[in-house]
Amino acid sequence: MQAEIITIGDEILIGQIIDTNSAFLGKELNKVGISIYQITSIQDDKTHILKALKEAEQNADIIIITGGLGPTKDDITKHTLCEYFNDTLVESKEVLAHVEYLFSKYIKTPISDINRQQALVPSKAKVLRNQFGTAPGMWIEKNGKVFVSLPGVPYEMKALISNLVIPQLLEQFKFPFIMHKTLLTYGLGESAIADRIETFADALPDFIKLAYLPSLGRVRLRLSAKAMDKTMVEAEMERQVNLLVPQVEDIFVGFEEDNSIEAIIGSRLTEMCKTLAIAESCTGGRIAQGFTANAGASKYFKGSIVSYATDSKVNILGVSEDDIKSYSVVSKVVAETMAKNVMALFNTDYAVSTTGNAGPTKGDSDADVGTVWIAIATKTDVYSEVFDFSNQREKVIMKATNKAFEMLQKEISKK
Amino acid sequence: MQAEIITIGDEILIGQIIDTNSAFLGKELNKVGISIYQITSIQDDKTHILKALKEAEQNADIIIITGGLGPTKDDITKHTLCEYFNDTLVESKEVLAHVEYLFSKYIKTPISDINRQQALVPSKAKVLRNQFGTAPGMWIEKNGKVFVSLPGVPYEMKALISNLVIPQLLEQFKFPFIMHKTLLTYGLGESAIADRIETFADALPDFIKLAYLPSLGRVRLRLSAKAMDKTMVEAEMERQVNLLVPQVEDIFVGFEEDNSIEAIIGSRLTEMCKTLAIAESCTGGRIAQGFTANAGASKYFKGSIVSYATDSKVNILGVSEDDIKSYSVVSKVVAETMAKNVMALFNTDYAVSTTGNAGPTKGDSDADVGTVWIAIATKTDVYSEVFDFSNQREKVIMKATNKAFEMLQKEISKK
Repeated sequence: MQAEIITIGDEILIGQIIDTNSAFLGKELNKVGISIYQITSIQDDKTHILKALKEAEQNADIIIITGGLGPTKDDITKHTLCEYFNDTLVESKEVLAHVEYLFSKYIKTPISDINRQQALVPSKAKVLRNQFGTAPGMWIEKNGKVFVSLPGVPYEMKALISNLVIPQLLEQFKFPFIMHKTLLTYGLGESAIADRIETFADALPDFIKLAYLPSLGRVRLRLSAKAMDKTMVEAEMERQVNLLVPQVEDIFVGFEEDNSIEAIIGSRLTEMCKTLAIAESCTGGRIAQGFTANAGASKYFKGSIVSYATDSKVNILGVSEDDIKSYSVVSKVVAETMAKNVMALFNTDYAVSTTGNAGPTKGDSDADVGTVWIAIATKTDVYSEVFDFSNQREKVIMKATNKAFEMLQKEISKK
Repeated sequence: MQAEIITIGDEILIGQIIDTNSAFLGKELNKVGISIYQITSIQDDKTHILKALKEAEQNADIIIITGGLGPTKDDITKHTLCEYFNDTLVESKEVLAHVEYLFSKYIKTPISDINRQQALVPSKAKVLRNQFGTAPGMWIEKNGKVFVSLPGVPYEMKALISNLVIPQLLEQFKFPFIMHKTLLTYGLGESAIADRIETFADALPDFIKLAYLPSLGRVRLRLSAKAMDKTMVEAEMERQVNLLVPQVEDIFVGFEEDNSIEAIIGSRLTEMCKTLAIAESCTGGRIAQGFTANAGASKYFKGSIVSYATDSKVNILGVSEDDIKSYSVVSKVVAETMAKNVMALFNTDYAVSTTGNAGPTKGDSDADVGTVWIAIATKTDVYSEVFDFSNQREKVIMKATNKAFEMLQKEISKK
């Protein structure tokens, strides 16, 4: 059984928003054994929606549609579903009561005719209650295939998928077992890794696929398995992972699962009861934001100083003006002073710092665009490395952020 | 003339990565008058790629394919293109020389057979030189339709699109004029805005469409126009915008164009020669990261303190322990002290601060999950507001970040 995802909205096709819903849907459906055949993004256009529904019905058994359910005139999904299923809209008392409740609780104005229309649903649809918004989800079946229409607002869609859609799918169908295991590696290129593990890759069984996912400063190696026999899949996956890890031990930092490297570092620090502070210049808050995106960050993350201007490195982080004059603000001594002093300021066990030039111009420093110093401080040591992260701003910021995570991960993994 | 985007890669369908390439492509193609008919994301599977190519050829005139061009075995796009166009791979001397150059300059190891295969291209393809990577772009024409295959690595794809693909398309074809104008509004819901501007919306000419894009704490109103006559489109768009803005003046913060609210605030501060500092607690670096993502941030942004732990609010930001005991760490007095003191520390003209509880647990404070105080400090004033941003961590962080931008924008726009 396969699923197709259809996302509806001009804003996706003109690039005004990035479609994050599809990635969430792909991940959650995969977890319960449903493969995604295709993701199709289309405009708020009746003819095109009808065509996409027809094609999806031919290719897939489960069709998840998001978007186009808002109360305004540009949203036409509901009317188009009626046309596709030869149905009519009827008022759902349950939805109307919910819309009235949301308005009385949060908006505190009487509901208008526009809002009242949110309670209209196709007569053949089963209503899926949207706890976070006025547009209900809708579940429609046709010839054994399931069509689910959901609002495009991410947190509304996510709650509906996790709380109602997936449980209902699991009740109605039996799916195979899908398993992914992703190794995070930092420090070696894709083709060098492929060369090194070629024998391993060639010997993988048919039901396990290996993929390489390179990005700025890291390569993820993903093993994906799919079969009906869960026990067999789990055992074979474990065997293959145990073969693979020793071959990449020098570049391996952990398993991704649902975890980013920030979350892996956070778990390790929490286990060790150690704390972290950050001093960021060119990364501008990205490193702190990576840690604080995860719940539980307050257990190990005490805080960060984004010392963007040179004088704030002096005034707040105690970098010496003479050092800046002698060595430039992008230098080993500045990076290491930032790390040592932010560790002292926040009274932590570890600190990481960045100082560099993300471009596009040279800014306060003489350093070339792309030059970044990253330092690590511990209770007994401070050290740093310099990198040349090329000349595109976003790339420099991301590479420096990833490298800071990598250096920190290596430091806290020292035996 | 319409384009279709095909993104290839299992990692997209299993939700391991978010497809940001399509949004970039949609935006850039739109700018030069090319509408996107559909975005189709599919697996690294030969049959499926062939099917997608065939369907795209029926629907669109320009087909942009990304992904599957890496040097490893899971990448099959190039071989599949050969099958589709009934072609064979030949070695491009130009690409081989470029791969050798990249290896000698950056990787500093001899190139392997795997890397050498990057120089194989379909004989019918025109090679598009990839300055940032080993996989070349490829341009293939068939019956007046253009197929362009690009690597999936975002910065490689972006450079190829901007420097080679779009200039070549503009040389070969004539496109209509497409124009979007997006008003950023903060503080009123989608349906309330729709009610208010109904008469305006109903009177729009056929070639201008209005869309509502609600997200956490803000609604974007987008007017999209498309026609051959550029002068007419620009004039009519200006007329409509001049009609619309006065109707939403109380909630309007600026035009989005390519600008986020952070960029709008940054431009305004730069114009005024004023500076900004930030003290973040629950937003954990998001606000700073929003500003520093834009080039030129160093002109107005001096720095930020992410005081995540309560004791760092005391030790670094000088919040009084007694105030924390009496009023809680999530309180008016703590938010306002943070803003005032971070402004003094960084010696700036403005500061914004956040203190709140993003959840999922209560943490150091007695405040409910979702409660956030946001304060603004100026040379002559400090004030704050409290919000209840519901109970989902990511939502609280984003709503608080957006609200901080909104309050800051209002402050610096005061006459």
